[in-house]
Amino acid sequence: MIKIAVDAMGGDNAPQAIVEGVNKAIETFDDIHIQLYGDQEKINQYLKANPRVSVLQTTEVITGEDEPVKAVRRKKDASMVVAAKAVKAGEADALVSAGNTGGLLATGLLVVGRIKNIDRPGLMPILPTFSLEHKHLILMDAGANADTKVENLHQFAILANYYAKKVLNIENPRIGLVNNGTEEGKGNELTKQAYELLKNDTSLNFYGNIEASTILNGLVDIAIVDGFTGNAILKTLEGTARNIFRALKDVLLNSGIKAKLGGLLVKDALGSLRDNFDDTKEGGAVMLGVKAPVIKAHGSSNGEAFYNAIRQARKVVQTDVVNDISNYFESEK
Amino acid sequence: MIKIAVDAMGGDNAPQAIVEGVNKAIETFDDIHIQLYGDQEKINQYLKANPRVSVLQTTEVITGEDEPVKAVRRKKDASMVVAAKAVKAGEADALVSAGNTGGLLATGLLVVGRIKNIDRPGLMPILPTFSLEHKHLILMDAGANADTKVENLHQFAILANYYAKKVLNIENPRIGLVNNGTEEGKGNELTKQAYELLKNDTSLNFYGNIEASTILNGLVDIAIVDGFTGNAILKTLEGTARNIFRALKDVLLNSGIKAKLGGLLVKDALGSLRDNFDDTKEGGAVMLGVKAPVIKAHGSSNGEAFYNAIRQARKVVQTDVVNDISNYFESEK
Repeated sequence: MIKIAVDAMGGDNAPQAIVEGVNKAIETFDDIHIQLYGDQEKINQYLKANPRVSVLQTTEVITGEDEPVKAVRRKKDASMVVAAKAVKAGEADALVSAGNTGGLLATGLLVVGRIKNIDRPGLMPILPTFSLEHKHLILMDAGANADTKVENLHQFAILANYYAKKVLNIENPRIGLVNNGTEEGKGNELTKQAYELLKNDTSLNFYGNIEASTILNGLVDIAIVDGFTGNAILKTLEGTARNIFRALKDVLLNSGIKAKLGGLLVKDALGSLRDNFDDTKEGGAVMLGVKAPVIKAHGSSNGEAFYNAIRQARKVVQTDVVNDISNYFESEK
Repeated sequence: MIKIAVDAMGGDNAPQAIVEGVNKAIETFDDIHIQLYGDQEKINQYLKANPRVSVLQTTEVITGEDEPVKAVRRKKDASMVVAAKAVKAGEADALVSAGNTGGLLATGLLVVGRIKNIDRPGLMPILPTFSLEHKHLILMDAGANADTKVENLHQFAILANYYAKKVLNIENPRIGLVNNGTEEGKGNELTKQAYELLKNDTSLNFYGNIEASTILNGLVDIAIVDGFTGNAILKTLEGTARNIFRALKDVLLNSGIKAKLGGLLVKDALGSLRDNFDDTKEGGAVMLGVKAPVIKAHGSSNGEAFYNAIRQARKVVQTDVVNDISNYFESEK
């Protein structure tokens, strides 16, 4: 049985969306057991009772306004923190939360704990691409770290490489370095050094530099980037897509009867297009580099998105990728 | 008469698109004189002869493959370099090129020269926003510098502020700092320090931190960012928009007869939507911090886009903003 600890109180639509996701996951997979941490009364309003679900009462919540590290230290009975403690104690195999990203990263570091010899865990969303052939892009690091050293970038590549191979079944993942030009020798001090490290690591299939404009075009499976820039890229992607789809809707509704009629006819096609950009389909972002899988679901997750994050957590546990990573890094030095 | 030096050989569609842009600009504005630098024979194929246009023969071109600094030093008869020398010598008031961005930045630095007390010039595109009320977003720096110090960010803000006021007629430009969260105290070492500098400079209307997801939503007029991240943001914006519009076209053409018919009906509305995202309408990106206006037109500029870059150069010269900036910085220390 795979045991998944779920923060029932994190995210914009908690606990309803969280519990709906849990209901669906329990129904779909008969090999999982879920521990729901949060306000029992509220959780039970939405929960379909099942012997494979336990509800555990907690009294605090880490909110979007909380300063992450402080909150994790002070709010000892926060749903996220107590769920992480269960993982740390071996009572659960993975943690899933749609709560405060900074809070979850701090929880991962302070409660679950880093794998030995990994200096900085990274946050790794799996994005849908515009390529038919290569459907996923792993972005590493999408913002776990504000300041990044070259050794961190190298470790990110190793971590993401394990994930791509074991969880996404990509045989020889192509790893690109996000840079301000494609030619060798381009970049800032950090990326110039990282290029050399990645190129010289024969265990990695290094593609070379990749520009942010083509990051989703299927040229690589993994894009390595410092967390500050990665965060900016991820947010620009999300913001641009959201803004364009909103503008699209507006222009079809407000450009007269012809466009309105056309809009009705293209509605399904646009819906399917939009679905292609749904970055919750693959689940959430994985915090990799800590001693157990920690999955960050979108803050705006609905039940379906949160279900996908649980599905992903199950798969990550099944593949035992975190154990492989631990073995590699612990024997490294 | 405003004298504009134009690199006729830079860009994907040179010299045809460049010369077409020049033809239109000469027709539209009777107060400009244009010097076209490049292959006279090719230029004359497209040029409408006019006493306000001179064609000056050059024999070399800085290409996309050239290493910028080396190329500027070695290709002494490159169209871009010779055009810049005319600006340096006072024979022209501004330089416009659609050529190699790195080459143009190097030309700006090495030939036109930095304004005294400005450590690093910045590259500043003016982007269309999704806001009806605030139609422009100045992104500074979009990639002139790979490594950036906090003093550079502060100077970028001062430079962009002058441009917004004088060229875009924005009374009290709102300046945001691109960061990994909106709260004060967020950021990497660089942005944390920059926040303090910008906040304490009472000559600036500092809005605070802004995330890349809302950069085009009209919250600010100017977004300050280090050149490496700024470059990634700009390329992500361009890549995402281009990919979505391409996918949109595909889905309307290939989702059956209903979508195809609808696609015909919404064609005009989509065209107008796409026009809204056309970042060549405002002209090109301005290199600010050098002794004369240097405008980088899109490499893929057609005649209309290049015309807009010339129009912008004319306006920048008219406002005398570079002179104001020089006076400010030269008297500063």
